[in-house]
Amino acid sequence: MRFAVLVSGSGTNLQALLDAEGRGELAPARLVVVVSNRPDVRALDRARAAGKPAITVDHKAFAGREAFERALLAELAIHGVEAVVLAGFMRVLTATFIGAFPQRIVNTHPALLPAFPGTDAAGQALAHGVKLTGMSVHFVDAGVDTGPIIAQRAVRVLPGDDAAALQRRIQAEEHRVLPRVVQALAAGRITCEGRRVLIAPAGASLDDADELL
Amino acid sequence: MRFAVLVSGSGTNLQALLDAEGRGELAPARLVVVVSNRPDVRALDRARAAGKPAITVDHKAFAGREAFERALLAELAIHGVEAVVLAGFMRVLTATFIGAFPQRIVNTHPALLPAFPGTDAAGQALAHGVKLTGMSVHFVDAGVDTGPIIAQRAVRVLPGDDAAALQRRIQAEEHRVLPRVVQALAAGRITCEGRRVLIAPAGASLDDADELL
Repeated sequence: MRFAVLVSGSGTNLQALLDAEGRGELAPARLVVVVSNRPDVRALDRARAAGKPAITVDHKAFAGREAFERALLAELAIHGVEAVVLAGFMRVLTATFIGAFPQRIVNTHPALLPAFPGTDAAGQALAHGVKLTGMSVHFVDAGVDTGPIIAQRAVRVLPGDDAAALQRRIQAEEHRVLPRVVQALAAGRITCEGRRVLIAPAGASLDDADELL
Repeated sequence: MRFAVLVSGSGTNLQALLDAEGRGELAPARLVVVVSNRPDVRALDRARAAGKPAITVDHKAFAGREAFERALLAELAIHGVEAVVLAGFMRVLTATFIGAFPQRIVNTHPALLPAFPGTDAAGQALAHGVKLTGMSVHFVDAGVDTGPIIAQRAVRVLPGDDAAALQRRIQAEEHRVLPRVVQALAAGRITCEGRRVLIAPAGASLDDADELL
């Protein structure tokens, strides 16, 4: 499964994917191109350092969302992309783009969806006063963080937390879980029944599947 | 802290409180009366079996919510109640009732609020396809399951779960956490800063507080 990572910023989730691939943990997934909608971001440096094509498709250079997405789709087609990982990608995608990769676009979100969708999820969680928040990897649909959920991990809110400290601990879980989801997707182990997503075990043990879920 | 438990049904959370009190784990909290808004429910039998006053204030016997709550408040006053635990109590309380016990009414809800408020939280979680749900103990305000959150625990959704199986595992967490919250409330260890609820450690170790949170 040839996949692209779409980024907008520092690219720590991209780095987790690059590191996992370097350890041979993503196969049969293969990261073939990194695309940023903003020029000169750190994520592009990370991609180049790992020897990956690193491309900018600047959304500001296009008249509208449709033109931007067409340019994006063209770059992905050039690289033979079959699946897309959004890793801190800050543009909402339209049904046109999403329809080009049915159940092959995943996003990681720093909250236990459906709680705290949208931006600043860690700040939202702190403001609401929850004791547990976490992260979710989900299929992307036309809503904001509303697609079927593939994997979730809980992260405890600690008494002295500010949004930055909480965000760091959430990201540590994202870095651990996102590569495992990409591998499972590539291996054909992920299936949807309506909104319920099932992950078949990698080996013989059902316990492994539970752990991944 | 003399507290009442309000119930509507089988009373498994009430039983957890009775058992914890029997083991000496609730002091300085003391359960002084159990009130049901429905007659002949199992929770009332549980209360009587533990030697507690078990009273029915049937909401259907009153012309409206206000009259019902006045009768309820009268029973609580007769028993010198200082705090109220809602344990499967299926009536929404008005600001009048809530105002009588400021930051002294807690509810347990079978989901990780703010996700899945209202009825059938386990069914809602399954229908949404989350991988993690859980339970929340929170202060009661005039909304439905919207008050400041005191404690939360995560419960994993398993591949073969139906709502009943998931609900049972969530309830097991409720039975463990609710008595600890009641003890902490009685001991004056729970404070609110806006929506953020802090629980001071019972002993010297901050780790204990983290665990309770």
